[in-house]
Amino acid sequence: MNKFMDKDFLLDTQTARELFHSYAENMPICDYHCHLSPKEIYENKQPSDISQLWLSGDHYKWRAMRSCGVEEKYCTGDATPKEKFLKFGETLQYCIGNPLYHWAHIELQRYFGIDTPLNKATAEDIYDRANEAIAQGDFRPQALIKKSNVKYICTTDDPIDDLKYHKLLREVEDFDCTVLPSYRPDKALNIHLEGFADYIKTLGEVAETEIKSYKDVIAALLKRCDYFHTVGCRVSDQAFEYVPYSIAPEEEIETIFQKAMAGETITAEESDKYKTPILLALGKKYHQLGWAMEIHIGAIRNNSTRMFNKLGPDTGFDSVGDCEIAITLSKFMNELDITDQLPKTILFNLNDKDNTVLATMLGNFQSAEADSKIQFGPAWWFLDTMDGMTNQMKSLGNLGVLGKFVGMETDSRSFTSYGRHEYFRRIMCRLLGRWVEDGWYAYNKDILKEIVQGISYNNAIKYFDF
Amino acid sequence: MNKFMDKDFLLDTQTARELFHSYAENMPICDYHCHLSPKEIYENKQPSDISQLWLSGDHYKWRAMRSCGVEEKYCTGDATPKEKFLKFGETLQYCIGNPLYHWAHIELQRYFGIDTPLNKATAEDIYDRANEAIAQGDFRPQALIKKSNVKYICTTDDPIDDLKYHKLLREVEDFDCTVLPSYRPDKALNIHLEGFADYIKTLGEVAETEIKSYKDVIAALLKRCDYFHTVGCRVSDQAFEYVPYSIAPEEEIETIFQKAMAGETITAEESDKYKTPILLALGKKYHQLGWAMEIHIGAIRNNSTRMFNKLGPDTGFDSVGDCEIAITLSKFMNELDITDQLPKTILFNLNDKDNTVLATMLGNFQSAEADSKIQFGPAWWFLDTMDGMTNQMKSLGNLGVLGKFVGMETDSRSFTSYGRHEYFRRIMCRLLGRWVEDGWYAYNKDILKEIVQGISYNNAIKYFDF
Amino acid sequence: MNKFMDKDFLLDTQTARELFHSYAENMPICDYHCHLSPKEIYENKQPSDISQLWLSGDHYKWRAMRSCGVEEKYCTGDATPKEKFLKFGETLQYCIGNPLYHWAHIELQRYFGIDTPLNKATAEDIYDRANEAIAQGDFRPQALIKKSNVKYICTTDDPIDDLKYHKLLREVEDFDCTVLPSYRPDKALNIHLEGFADYIKTLGEVAETEIKSYKDVIAALLKRCDYFHTVGCRVSDQAFEYVPYSIAPEEEIETIFQKAMAGETITAEESDKYKTPILLALGKKYHQLGWAMEIHIGAIRNNSTRMFNKLGPDTGFDSVGDCEIAITLSKFMNELDITDQLPKTILFNLNDKDNTVLATMLGNFQSAEADSKIQFGPAWWFLDTMDGMTNQMKSLGNLGVLGKFVGMETDSRSFTSYGRHEYFRRIMCRLLGRWVEDGWYAYNKDILKEIVQGISYNNAIKYFDF
Repeated sequence: MNKFMDKDFLLDTQTARELFHSYAENMPICDYHCHLSPKEIYENKQPSDISQLWLSGDHYKWRAMRSCGVEEKYCTGDATPKEKFLKFGETLQYCIGNPLYHWAHIELQRYFGIDTPLNKATAEDIYDRANEAIAQGDFRPQALIKKSNVKYICTTDDPIDDLKYHKLLREVEDFDCTVLPSYRPDKALNIHLEGFADYIKTLGEVAETEIKSYKDVIAALLKRCDYFHTVGCRVSDQAFEYVPYSIAPEEEIETIFQKAMAGETITAEESDKYKTPILLALGKKYHQLGWAMEIHIGAIRNNSTRMFNKLGPDTGFDSVGDCEIAITLSKFMNELDITDQLPKTILFNLNDKDNTVLATMLGNFQSAEADSKIQFGPAWWFLDTMDGMTNQMKSLGNLGVLGKFVGMETDSRSFTSYGRHEYFRRIMCRLLGRWVEDGWYAYNKDILKEIVQGISYNNAIKYFDF
Repeated sequence: MNKFMDKDFLLDTQTARELFHSYAENMPICDYHCHLSPKEIYENKQPSDISQLWLSGDHYKWRAMRSCGVEEKYCTGDATPKEKFLKFGETLQYCIGNPLYHWAHIELQRYFGIDTPLNKATAEDIYDRANEAIAQGDFRPQALIKKSNVKYICTTDDPIDDLKYHKLLREVEDFDCTVLPSYRPDKALNIHLEGFADYIKTLGEVAETEIKSYKDVIAALLKRCDYFHTVGCRVSDQAFEYVPYSIAPEEEIETIFQKAMAGETITAEESDKYKTPILLALGKKYHQLGWAMEIHIGAIRNNSTRMFNKLGPDTGFDSVGDCEIAITLSKFMNELDITDQLPKTILFNLNDKDNTVLATMLGNFQSAEADSKIQFGPAWWFLDTMDGMTNQMKSLGNLGVLGKFVGMETDSRSFTSYGRHEYFRRIMCRLLGRWVEDGWYAYNKDILKEIVQGISYNNAIKYFDF
Repeated sequence: MNKFMDKDFLLDTQTARELFHSYAENMPICDYHCHLSPKEIYENKQPSDISQLWLSGDHYKWRAMRSCGVEEKYCTGDATPKEKFLKFGETLQYCIGNPLYHWAHIELQRYFGIDTPLNKATAEDIYDRANEAIAQGDFRPQALIKKSNVKYICTTDDPIDDLKYHKLLREVEDFDCTVLPSYRPDKALNIHLEGFADYIKTLGEVAETEIKSYKDVIAALLKRCDYFHTVGCRVSDQAFEYVPYSIAPEEEIETIFQKAMAGETITAEESDKYKTPILLALGKKYHQLGWAMEIHIGAIRNNSTRMFNKLGPDTGFDSVGDCEIAITLSKFMNELDITDQLPKTILFNLNDKDNTVLATMLGNFQSAEADSKIQFGPAWWFLDTMDGMTNQMKSLGNLGVLGKFVGMETDSRSFTSYGRHEYFRRIMCRLLGRWVEDGWYAYNKDILKEIVQGISYNNAIKYFDF
């Protein structure tokens, strides 16, 4: 029996161990997509206890607890930090096969120096030891980022954001991690959601553009791209159930826009017709600026109206959709490609049934503009698991060029979640190591080093032009 | 080379063997969903030979035989029992990789004491030995159920059923298995199928309710829920290609219902509009009664009209559909959840492409009402295979809380099919054992015992409140 | 560590090695579906260099190169053969996990006697050695086919083809491979594509049938079936995103046909209505002639308009779709089955999410006409990978009868691609060997020999009645 999560965790061959410890382990991190708050990084506050660090905002943990029948007061409610932690500890012992189990133990080991498995019986002791470590050490965001060897962080920001904290962070001494904004225009696209008209008004003000037509929305968005670019933005991000693509005459789009601004209900078909020209204009702008366009496909959000009304979005009530996605995605990318204006693009899927669609879609639009200009994004959110990551890399290996993969990002809201990069690298080295050991891929140290360090860090740096 | 299907069949690590033999093997069985006949259990007749036991009603075996070019007379026709068995024996040797191969050998070993692999060359000898065992032993349903250590059986029953045999079975001496009805209202929902109007008339008579409107259908169905509850029913079951959810005004639903009662053709859209209020009313009733609602998604039935006309339903001509299922399922569950009336729910999928959708849907609607109130049902029917079960447990492990899983049911029509619980437990212990051996999950006997015995039996007993 | 791609490549158990080397390795090849040119086989020209052999028409290799940012001139452009080969050699080292990597090395080993791994550093030396081998040996198509022990080749041919080269090939001495045409009527079905009307005119001329109605199209196509049959055709092939099935009145179909002949645009719905009666008529004809009907489902083609305009079809810009496919496929097969006119059918999917749908669809329509009359075609094109082939065989094993599988075809355009049969057989023996070693399937040499040789060659010969 292997030791529980020791230094060779997941590394089941000699080659895997060699690849990880010699090449992957000490590479820096480029976290090119996450939901960290630049304000929190800048303000750099010490957490009061491990419950604040772990349980105050992590919907993964809340979902697991609710799945064990834990009452809401121990998740998002007014139970004490200790009560919450004890409930989480008990929950974790039933999470066999869940990445949360591995993430939690990696974090306990790396950040707190605690090797004890967390379960109902050990939770109280671990709670005390972790809090002692916090009391005695530096657990502020900048310290955790430094300790994790993170060189680049791309946060997720609204076009109306003033990016004040990104600017302030440039000035911080003794903090050599570059924190860049990403451009996420979802609110300007989601014409069918409540609050759209108000958002558009604010967008117009921020962009100093009077918005009377959907074309003005485009103009305002493009202006904000230019602003974001000056603050170092090189990545955009958009999220959809499926990538919309529906061509309509300009007048019809204008009518739809005016309806939405007047507060009328917008159908799914109308929404797609509005989104299409906006997205095409943005795509061309991203291409012009040399940005990478991330597209996250497949979430269905806020499934529980009851809990949404209580807690709002991003609290653990999202899940995975199963729409058809291939045709409209192909048409959207093709429309930009026709005029050679398709930007570097990273396609992420949340439903693993779509792995083959995405991993083959890439190949339709590659070009000499970049190594694997169109990328298959790493397994993300619900797929950020041993199986999800392995299957994504196998799909990319089978159907694309794995050696040019830009690798992992955390998509995280937590400052201790950099263990997910370690987890990813172990899984990657496990997979590659097994292929080499089985005689499927020639053992050549130089080439393997280039591939492993490429996927760990170097490919991303080159791809994003950091 | 491991010995062929010996006591350590499928248990490929020391931990797997320990988990199975120490904790799983001797747990009783709670078969919370099957198609056994309570009448046959009560009448308790000895089979004449192994062909009657194995080949008189098993569409899995008929499909395999037809796939080997075996003529229909050896499947459902008038060939002799021996001829049929010989054809099946020959078929089985080509079924490499098929669970039928494992099920058949587990049953030969456990019920007949025969260890010889069944193939063309051995079929005649095995036929004789099996029949000798039957001649000399007790192969009546109650004996097979006892021998298999089954404590609970939930059959599948129509709301119009009088449940006579369930009541009679309570009185049988020396039979300590509790046989409970399950409530399956499919015929009252399938407004688009032939025979609907006649069924509704019978339902009205049985429920002593005059049915003039679709609301009377609801009233009658709810009355039958109450009756089923008095006979011990705690589970309902419904089957769909996809879960319908389409809200229409009451008048429109009434018009659709009247059309159907007049024998007119009903479209798929109309059918969904009728089913929606019925299902919502039933869901609320199940919640009130504390029942679990099973939803089986994804079969497409009776694909061969030619064979349906010859043999009727459930004779081996069903297969797996590929509809989108996420959105309507989410809306249906949400509508019940809004008012806190969503019952305990078990979601089963027949297409493994839907694993990620279901395993993440659970998390949207968990609550403190039960440990994993929303369950991901075990791999079922076409997915009741080594790969199907492993993938379902991996999905649940990755995306939910595997330690709270209610585990296996047979979905079977045969009294020797309890070997499928053994098969499931071996696969479960194999998976868990490997995780422990690989150092992914901490080795802790008490916790592993609780998880293994939970998934084998205890979680179900607690969940269904038996 | 296993040696890199040695004689036991992929054979990770003693049983796997025994099955492959004793039973599979020396079986002849029946390549029942490919895109080889009968003209090129007949003309039998020696290639000038390895770039001509490998890089002049292989979209797999071009896609990989483009994914590494290689400029188009090195793929399909005017770079020198050596420059192209060097770019491919560099590309290949990043293709870890890609079948191209294995195919290339199998071909280097078997046809060129070169064991060196191909990468950036070795590419120039390998280029020289391969060209020396070509200069000194016989690399003409017939020699490569003989060396590969191919006994049957089914090419892919348009109904208007005169099959001249198939006839000429019968007369070639010293060439004991039977080269047969396959009937591929896609152009007569694709009413929505440009060029349809012209094609129909040519079809009428070739079939000596005046085509005034869609019924005349049917008549012409059936005449061409008869002609193909006289030249030895026993296989038809059709390719779809999904199998169309939409019943319309004859007049409506006629109107659609006349619109298309007049050059008007045809919608997807109209296209399906036209295709349905054509396909049903063809299906009945295939059944009457005893042909096998191959159906390839799931490609979306020519995604990049920009590159299609430059290079035309089949140049590496196709990918995988995700339509629903189950219902119309079932209805189409059922309509032929009702009157007992469903031909032997092989179903191929390009999206592995459809494995379960196809592997269960088979069972609806099996009969005593053939062993596994309805076949699940081998993993194809984008799925022609280690994982794709393994998963297809597992699906078929789980859900059908793997022992009756007709096995591999290359779907290839290259004369050195027969290594893919070896690759397939190694993967098959690996899978079966593991099952035997694990004690899941009884070790019985005679039965395993029959199964392995059946899947390698014998099942296909029997199935196609060659």
